[in-house]
Amino acid sequence: MSGFSPADNLFMGRALRLARRPQQPPHPNPAVGCVLVRDGLIVGEGWHERAGEPHAEAMALHRAGEQASGATAYVTLEPCSHHGRTPPCSEALLAAGVVRVVAAMTDPNPQVAGRGLRRLRAAGLEVATGLMAEQAAALNPGFTQRMRTGRPWLRLKSAASLDGRTAMASGESRWITSPQARADVHRWRARSDAMLTGIGTVLADDPRLDVRDAGIEAPRQPRRCVLDRDLRTPADAVLLRGEGATLFHGPDVAAGQIRRLTDAGAHCVALPLADGRLDLGAALDWLGGQGCNEVLVEAGPTLGGALSRAGLVDEWLLYLAPHLMGDAARPLLHWPGLETMSQRQPLRVQDCRLVGPDLRLTLRLGSGT
Amino acid sequence: MSGFSPADNLFMGRALRLARRPQQPPHPNPAVGCVLVRDGLIVGEGWHERAGEPHAEAMALHRAGEQASGATAYVTLEPCSHHGRTPPCSEALLAAGVVRVVAAMTDPNPQVAGRGLRRLRAAGLEVATGLMAEQAAALNPGFTQRMRTGRPWLRLKSAASLDGRTAMASGESRWITSPQARADVHRWRARSDAMLTGIGTVLADDPRLDVRDAGIEAPRQPRRCVLDRDLRTPADAVLLRGEGATLFHGPDVAAGQIRRLTDAGAHCVALPLADGRLDLGAALDWLGGQGCNEVLVEAGPTLGGALSRAGLVDEWLLYLAPHLMGDAARPLLHWPGLETMSQRQPLRVQDCRLVGPDLRLTLRLGSGT
Repeated sequence: MSGFSPADNLFMGRALRLARRPQQPPHPNPAVGCVLVRDGLIVGEGWHERAGEPHAEAMALHRAGEQASGATAYVTLEPCSHHGRTPPCSEALLAAGVVRVVAAMTDPNPQVAGRGLRRLRAAGLEVATGLMAEQAAALNPGFTQRMRTGRPWLRLKSAASLDGRTAMASGESRWITSPQARADVHRWRARSDAMLTGIGTVLADDPRLDVRDAGIEAPRQPRRCVLDRDLRTPADAVLLRGEGATLFHGPDVAAGQIRRLTDAGAHCVALPLADGRLDLGAALDWLGGQGCNEVLVEAGPTLGGALSRAGLVDEWLLYLAPHLMGDAARPLLHWPGLETMSQRQPLRVQDCRLVGPDLRLTLRLGSGT
Repeated sequence: MSGFSPADNLFMGRALRLARRPQQPPHPNPAVGCVLVRDGLIVGEGWHERAGEPHAEAMALHRAGEQASGATAYVTLEPCSHHGRTPPCSEALLAAGVVRVVAAMTDPNPQVAGRGLRRLRAAGLEVATGLMAEQAAALNPGFTQRMRTGRPWLRLKSAASLDGRTAMASGESRWITSPQARADVHRWRARSDAMLTGIGTVLADDPRLDVRDAGIEAPRQPRRCVLDRDLRTPADAVLLRGEGATLFHGPDVAAGQIRRLTDAGAHCVALPLADGRLDLGAALDWLGGQGCNEVLVEAGPTLGGALSRAGLVDEWLLYLAPHLMGDAARPLLHWPGLETMSQRQPLRVQDCRLVGPDLRLTLRLGSGT
C-alpha cells in the first residue's frame, strides 16, 4: 500500500458518501462513488445511480468537463475495463487526461481484478489502491461475495422479545417489535435483491414481503422467494399477486401442481434435496446466478435455524423488543443437538443500537474477527 | 425552580463527580459531593467517603478554611439538619459564613425534606434547589427509595445467551458470559449492601457471592442472603464461611435446624409466607430496616421470575453473551400464565453497551417513563 495523504483520505471519504447516494443499490451492479480533484479542489463528482445509467466515473468526468485534465480520480472500486452496457471507465479516465487514480479496492471478481488498474498504470498514470478498502467493501457486501463465490450475501432478520421468544405458545406474534423497527426492516428490504422465506411462514402469516414503508417513492421491489419443497403455497397467497413469487420446490412435485401455481403468478424452480430437505446452498447458487447480491431472509425458527446451522447466514439482524414473553412462548431459532456449553454457536456483535424502543443487533456467526 | 447560570451547572457537575469518588458507596448513607466557590473560583471540595467520616460539606469547609466566608456551596443533596454521628452540615455552612446554597435535591425522606434548607433560608442565606436533580437522584437510587418506602433498590442481574437461555438442558452454565462481564458484575456487587439469591442456586452452584474482582483492595463485603423457606442450605455451604450469611426461612422450620445453621455461621430470619412461599416484600422490608440501600439479586429463573412478576425489580441488568444455546436450553425467567401478546411484560431500555464481547442492558420493568 502506498502512503496516503490526509487529502487523499478526505476525498476518498467523500467518494464513499457519494456511493451511498442511491435510495436503492444499483442492482446487480455495485454502488460506486467517484471524486475528481485538481489542485486540491473537487472539479467533478459522480455515483452510479442504477444499472444502465452512467458509472460513477462517467458522471464525474461529465461534470468536470475539461477540468478533468491533470486531475486525480478517487474511486471506491477499481474502474471497469470491459465493454458492458456503458464504455469502460478506465478508457474514459485516460481519454480525459486524468493523471492519478486512487481506488479503494480492486474488482472483487478474481477473473478481472487489477485489469483496469494495470491498463491505467501501463498508460503512465500513477495508480494506488487500498485506501479505506474496508469501508468500500462494506458498501457492497453482496456484490463482493457474489463475485468471489457466486452466491449472494445472506442476511437473516429475526425479531424476538428480550427473553428470546418470537411468538406466544398459541402462535400469536403480531406485533413483537415497534412501528419504527418495522420501518427499519423495510429499509433493509429496499436494499435487498431478493426476499426469502419458508412455506411455514407463508401458510401461517400469508405475508407480502414487499417494500412499502421505506420512505422511497415507487421502490424497486425485491424478488420474493419461498422454499416450498412440496409446493404447498396456496394459489391465492398474497405473495403471488403483483410481480409474483419464485417457489423453490423439490424434484417430486406433480406437473399439474407446477402448472396451477404458474398460472397463479408463480415462477417454479426445481432444486435438489439434501437429507430430504431442499438444498439451501443450491437455492443460493440459483439466486447468485440471477444477479442477486443481497438476500434478506424473514422466516420462522425452522428455516432460520437451518440456514444458521448450515453456516449460510452472513449477517444476522436481530431486533429485540423490550418485553418478556415468558418461557412458554416460542423460541428464536430451532437448533437441535446443542447439549454442552462447548457446542454453543458463537456470534460477534458488529453493531448495537436503539430503533425506537427496540434494540437492533447486527451479528456475524463465528467467533473470529 | 430558580434560574441557574452556566457556572452553577459547571460547579454542580463537579459536585456530582466528587460524590462518585468513593470506591464503594458510604452505606447506609447517601453519596454526596460538595463544592465551595468564591469569586468564581473553587475554594474547597469534599465528598462523603464512608459512614462515620465527615460529610461532604464538612470536608469542603475544612479544605476551604477562611475562604468559605462569602462562598456559594454546591451540594448534591440538601445539607442535613440533625445531629447524627457528625454535627449538622446546615449549621456548619452557616457558621463558616457561606452566603448561598445550591442543592441538587431535597432530602428524600419526606419527614425531614426541606428542613435543612428552611433553616438556612431563615438565617438569611440565598437557597436554591432542583439543579441536576435527576443526576443527583441517580447517585443514590437505593437511599432515595429506602427513605421513601422503607425498602431497598432491587437490582436483578441475569446472564443469558442471545437466544435467551441461561443453561444447557443438562444444567451446565459456566461460563455464559466473558471474564469482562463477570468483573463488571463484581463492581455491581461492590456497590450493593446485600446480595440475595434462592436456595436453588445455593444447592446447584454453592456460590460465594462476594466481591473479589472489582479492582478494590479489601472491599467491604455485602451481606449475603438466601431465600430458603425450609432451611435446606447445607451447613458446609461456601456462603456460610467468613462473615456468614442471612437465611430467610418460613415459620415452620425446626428449632434444631435453625441451631445447626446458626452454629455453621448463618443468621436465620423468619419471614411470613404468602401463597405458600416466602413473602418477598417482607424480605425487602427487613433488609430496608437493616439500612440496606441497594440489593443485588443473582438467582435462577424461579426467583428472578417471582420477583419480576411481583413488581419488586427496580432495575434489571441483563448480560447477553453473543452465543446461541439452542431451544432445548433453559429459559431466562420462569413466568407462567403469559398466553397472549397483550399479557407481555413491558420493559424499557435505559442503557445498552458492550462489556468485552457481551452486551449489557439496563432495563426497567414497565412501559412508562
